[in-house]
Amino acid sequence: MANPTAAMLVIGDEILSGRTRDSNMNYLAKELTRAGIDLKEARIVSDSPNAIVKAVRSLSAAYDHVFTSGGIGPTHDDITAECVARAFDTPIGIRSDARALLEAHYARTGGELNAARLRMARIPDGATLIDNPVSTAPGFSIGNVHVMAGVPAVFEAMVASVLPTLTGGQPLLSQTLRIERGEGEIAGPLGDLAAEYPDLSIGSYPFQTNGIFGAHIVIRGHDGGQVDAAMTRLSELFA
Amino acid sequence: MANPTAAMLVIGDEILSGRTRDSNMNYLAKELTRAGIDLKEARIVSDSPNAIVKAVRSLSAAYDHVFTSGGIGPTHDDITAECVARAFDTPIGIRSDARALLEAHYARTGGELNAARLRMARIPDGATLIDNPVSTAPGFSIGNVHVMAGVPAVFEAMVASVLPTLTGGQPLLSQTLRIERGEGEIAGPLGDLAAEYPDLSIGSYPFQTNGIFGAHIVIRGHDGGQVDAAMTRLSELFA
Repeated sequence: MANPTAAMLVIGDEILSGRTRDSNMNYLAKELTRAGIDLKEARIVSDSPNAIVKAVRSLSAAYDHVFTSGGIGPTHDDITAECVARAFDTPIGIRSDARALLEAHYARTGGELNAARLRMARIPDGATLIDNPVSTAPGFSIGNVHVMAGVPAVFEAMVASVLPTLTGGQPLLSQTLRIERGEGEIAGPLGDLAAEYPDLSIGSYPFQTNGIFGAHIVIRGHDGGQVDAAMTRLSELFA
Repeated sequence: MANPTAAMLVIGDEILSGRTRDSNMNYLAKELTRAGIDLKEARIVSDSPNAIVKAVRSLSAAYDHVFTSGGIGPTHDDITAECVARAFDTPIGIRSDARALLEAHYARTGGELNAARLRMARIPDGATLIDNPVSTAPGFSIGNVHVMAGVPAVFEAMVASVLPTLTGGQPLLSQTLRIERGEGEIAGPLGDLAAEYPDLSIGSYPFQTNGIFGAHIVIRGHDGGQVDAAMTRLSELFA
């Protein structure tokens, strides 16, 4: 049976302006690979309501799971929760269990649960909270969309909270061979090998570092025996 | 007048599996910001013909420019050129000027222009070549889509070749203030300030490092005087 599919949606002008490098996508990609969920697409959109609503609808319809990152804090540019509610045509309001979490947190830390912070208790109707052991304010899952924070430590904690609740497939196995020859020299036999193993994905990733060039050949698949056999053939071809 | 808009399309299973971190998006984002072209969206798709064709069509219709990265080398998994041709419903074949570039390169370096390498001279009808001073094999522009290599050194050289040919707008100016207070404490006055300056984009990006937490407030806009004025107000508010 094919593995479940997933997409990631990163929300944030700061990534698109080049100010910040997103690191959440790479983290999620590795976790999903391990869980046997195939990440098929990632999108980065700006803090624009229409862009967010459109992307959530489109990805939610196309994949089994959608993971979002960013835009659920207390400031005016944190609009992800409202946009996800709109994408699902569902109301959003302050929810008592989310509010109770924040009240307990600020009572403990001595901060004030003001109007801005209370925005973080706004949850679309019908959603399930995602636990945030780092800074309390929860994420949420609605339908097949999992809405998480952008701060990497919080994002990673939320992924750890939500992933065990999903049904994964077979982990994707991979083996890599480094070949210090130009891609153009190895492409012919490599293409033949790929044609021999249609169930495997065989990728060639060229590198050039310190004057040395070549390619990393990565063989991926769900059947460990096949991956082993193809890697043995590959090593023989380019020994 | 509004700035031209752009999207980036990164093609590659190796990014979605978490094996590799994309760095081309961040590079392009900074270059476009400087050139006055607004990067509105980025997508990462797998090495799947349907996914690539669909993304090229959708982004090409929605934005003034589309920049792609990856999948134009000599191996069997390099399918970007064919897919872009399909997206534009145009034939693709080996083009004599691209072939001549490769012939001269391999004559100079002593390599063989074999069938795999000749694939890199396949260019959709009606495209313009993008110069590749690093490793010769050219990229190309067709319609509003600019097709470039995935290897960062080559991608960056191609961006340098193609950007001066495009008409940019006003560079986006930005100023940043670091505030060591929780976002929840500053969100109220910050939202008021954002409402006062509707032509500016005011973003709040929380951080937590070594036990210090706070937010970077970034004010962006095309009018330097407005950015200055808003930053002065911001500094007064949180002095």
